[in-house]
Amino acid sequence: ESGAMSNGWASRVSLGGYGEHHFNHFKDKDDKVDAHRFVLFVGNQFSDTVRFFSELEVEHGLVKDTDDGSGPGEVELEQAYIQWDFTPGHSLTMGQFLVPVGIINETHEPDTFYGTERNNVEKDIIPATWWETGVMFSGEILPGLKYNAALHSGLAADPGATVRSGRQKSANATAEDLAYTLRLAYTGVAGLEVAATAHHQQDISQGAAADGEANLLEAHIRYTIANLTLTALAAEWDIDGAAFDTAGTDVQEGAYLEASYKVTPKLGVFVRQSEWDNKAGNSVDTEIEQTDVGVNYWLTPTVVLKADLTEQDGAKDDDAFNLGVGWSF
Amino acid sequence: ESGAMSNGWASRVSLGGYGEHHFNHFKDKDDKVDAHRFVLFVGNQFSDTVRFFSELEVEHGLVKDTDDGSGPGEVELEQAYIQWDFTPGHSLTMGQFLVPVGIINETHEPDTFYGTERNNVEKDIIPATWWETGVMFSGEILPGLKYNAALHSGLAADPGATVRSGRQKSANATAEDLAYTLRLAYTGVAGLEVAATAHHQQDISQGAAADGEANLLEAHIRYTIANLTLTALAAEWDIDGAAFDTAGTDVQEGAYLEASYKVTPKLGVFVRQSEWDNKAGNSVDTEIEQTDVGVNYWLTPTVVLKADLTEQDGAKDDDAFNLGVGWSF
Amino acid sequence: ESGAMSNGWASRVSLGGYGEHHFNHFKDKDDKVDAHRFVLFVGNQFSDTVRFFSELEVEHGLVKDTDDGSGPGEVELEQAYIQWDFTPGHSLTMGQFLVPVGIINETHEPDTFYGTERNNVEKDIIPATWWETGVMFSGEILPGLKYNAALHSGLAADPGATVRSGRQKSANATAEDLAYTLRLAYTGVAGLEVAATAHHQQDISQGAAADGEANLLEAHIRYTIANLTLTALAAEWDIDGAAFDTAGTDVQEGAYLEASYKVTPKLGVFVRQSEWDNKAGNSVDTEIEQTDVGVNYWLTPTVVLKADLTEQDGAKDDDAFNLGVGWSF
Repeated sequence: ESGAMSNGWASRVSLGGYGEHHFNHFKDKDDKVDAHRFVLFVGNQFSDTVRFFSELEVEHGLVKDTDDGSGPGEVELEQAYIQWDFTPGHSLTMGQFLVPVGIINETHEPDTFYGTERNNVEKDIIPATWWETGVMFSGEILPGLKYNAALHSGLAADPGATVRSGRQKSANATAEDLAYTLRLAYTGVAGLEVAATAHHQQDISQGAAADGEANLLEAHIRYTIANLTLTALAAEWDIDGAAFDTAGTDVQEGAYLEASYKVTPKLGVFVRQSEWDNKAGNSVDTEIEQTDVGVNYWLTPTVVLKADLTEQDGAKDDDAFNLGVGWSF
Repeated sequence: ESGAMSNGWASRVSLGGYGEHHFNHFKDKDDKVDAHRFVLFVGNQFSDTVRFFSELEVEHGLVKDTDDGSGPGEVELEQAYIQWDFTPGHSLTMGQFLVPVGIINETHEPDTFYGTERNNVEKDIIPATWWETGVMFSGEILPGLKYNAALHSGLAADPGATVRSGRQKSANATAEDLAYTLRLAYTGVAGLEVAATAHHQQDISQGAAADGEANLLEAHIRYTIANLTLTALAAEWDIDGAAFDTAGTDVQEGAYLEASYKVTPKLGVFVRQSEWDNKAGNSVDTEIEQTDVGVNYWLTPTVVLKADLTEQDGAKDDDAFNLGVGWSF
Repeated sequence: ESGAMSNGWASRVSLGGYGEHHFNHFKDKDDKVDAHRFVLFVGNQFSDTVRFFSELEVEHGLVKDTDDGSGPGEVELEQAYIQWDFTPGHSLTMGQFLVPVGIINETHEPDTFYGTERNNVEKDIIPATWWETGVMFSGEILPGLKYNAALHSGLAADPGATVRSGRQKSANATAEDLAYTLRLAYTGVAGLEVAATAHHQQDISQGAAADGEANLLEAHIRYTIANLTLTALAAEWDIDGAAFDTAGTDVQEGAYLEASYKVTPKLGVFVRQSEWDNKAGNSVDTEIEQTDVGVNYWLTPTVVLKADLTEQDGAKDDDAFNLGVGWSF
């Protein structure tokens, strides 16, 4: 039964991927078609207890050099780590991994979420997709209760900009100041997931500002009863530092509520209400509110067609109608 | 007999590729060695009727950022689509696909054509390799008679430049004006392929010019009798718009004739006569003529060595001797 | 026993890779974390005698276009060749291959060498990783005695800069002047490897300087007795040309000695003494000396953790403490 192949490379190595194409019809700007994400997963099982996993992404379909920085896309190594089960139920991850925070940062295959575009709270506040390089302990401490505890490279945030723009992406990154992340997640009740993450970096400016002690707190709950799923997520950055205070970036926070309903196993509808503010520490109204409503149709369990409406209010007004096709394998 | 592996990822996922290295000895400029194309194919079979296919390319072997845009290469996602056989004999393609026109746009593995470099008629007029994002119906209507009917993103052509430079490559592409492509192909007689494509875009300038209604017509015939293959292809763009008229880019057209002969199953010789003009609407002689003559040697059915001579006349004079090695799998 | 899969694509095609993450604590500049190298190997067996092999690399984890050339990484095709066993024991390589010189240029998976960073003698003098495009004959002439004889594209070195900056990486490379490489290697005694390479290029400036006849000689010996391995390597470029003389780049040379000891099968320690000079032809003291001492721990035979100290003297003083994790499969 084992045959030649079972002992061959394909029984150790694995290849997969995901991707999504988007069409955005905007109210106030040119419509867009975009090969938004194209990802390959490559893994290897070195032994029963040691494995490798990686995620390599091409964003926006084309990476080329120009003289003015107008090349549309990027090649990004998003994950590349060795994971070692040093004792049953507990593992040590070494290398580049996704920071354990929120929902979409670690699970972002298009068939796993509603809406053509990823939600802006996790994108602009958390800021997903967020990866760092370091070491992380993971495991289960009680039935259904899991932990992640990580020491890793940190952001290099400019006081005048968002935490999102502080992502160094482990690309020749400044590592004067490391960061710590701790997550607890409970999935001990059928249909329920509750999780909270605390993250600390002594100086999020990596020495560029006088000070910038940063703490991120995130919590979310997701509960599925029959065909209905309810999700709530909130995240808040608090940054101690005069330059951040002045810019209003000392508080960056957001939250969303989402309800989705599976009309049939293949067809689901959703509504999501989000609000977020990357300058919540200032005295101006910089908060953005967004309502999304739409439909997912799963052609197969991991191939999805999407249609949705986005309406924004507050400091931004990028209303849109979106279509998407996505896959993962 | 099935074994563990037959049920594993490698029975769903597939990996392949193609590539070609070129040496060009030019009459009037520096000789070049180039890793012209390196391509990976990744596919997945989701179910009996739903599959994924993709083509990811690295051109010119090196992609790096510079301050003056002198980085030689590109990473390009050329194909990434979901194909669904919604009824026997007919499929719906969703995502990013090659526009069904000409010969080389869809079939460009180096072992499938003669000449180190791809022919300039299909490159500069069609313009191959040309991909867009949208939906396409494909199928067989009568024995040997196949159709493709597609609605997809369109070019964004500048009146002063070629259609080729209007390719947006689905990379954050402007989609104010979509396009339509219809192809009929007949292969019902052994050794014969006849095909014609009509393509329409209401405004090929995507709103940048006052108007630019564009139609492309392409037709080709290929006939193989014993060891001899004859190929003829013609393509013409007609663009209605004052700015295109003025620039002479309102007509862009070309054609080639090719004869090839398989001396042995591994060795083939060819001669090709091409002419094309990307400013055929002006009153100056901007047509280029080109004669190619050369040899292909197939070390295996999909590994090929090539040598050929290129002689140009008319508006351009890039005579060259070319050597190539190519593969596909 | 063969099953469906043994006849499928996975019995021809192969997929592998290697990679390494580095943390560098520098004495005199900002600490760094970097996804230094991420590599995929893709191969195909066309027939018993014809095969394809390739190495595609993403350096520094992120490739993006900027207006000032500050994008950190690169996508590089490092190898992509067809290899044909034209007679038993002898093969012809056609395409893009690693130049057969030194140790690390061809074998650079992180689990195969000591030290987080590759040694500077092979990096700055040889200059590894160095690939060219052309043809190479390889084989065994006597038991344990192997040869490589190659004709390939050459460097395009600026007289004022190092040979390393002359690497064109087969990316739309000037090929006015080709180059020749010959290597003999003897591994006929258990634990011993002795090899020498001679390389010649008639004009290493590719016509940019008045003249630049270049010769590289490299030799190394590695001997393993029980748990102890001793390695010695020396390399020297001699370039004949007034512009190179003036710049002192007419001689570029270096050497290192390394001793390593396997304390256990999983744990090894090493010390390495290097010196090199890319302007050895001038009258100033431009030589750099470096001492490395450190430890490798192999979690599995091809997963390695590294820690080492680097101390430099002479024309440079980049002292560092380095940590690394690497893998290959």
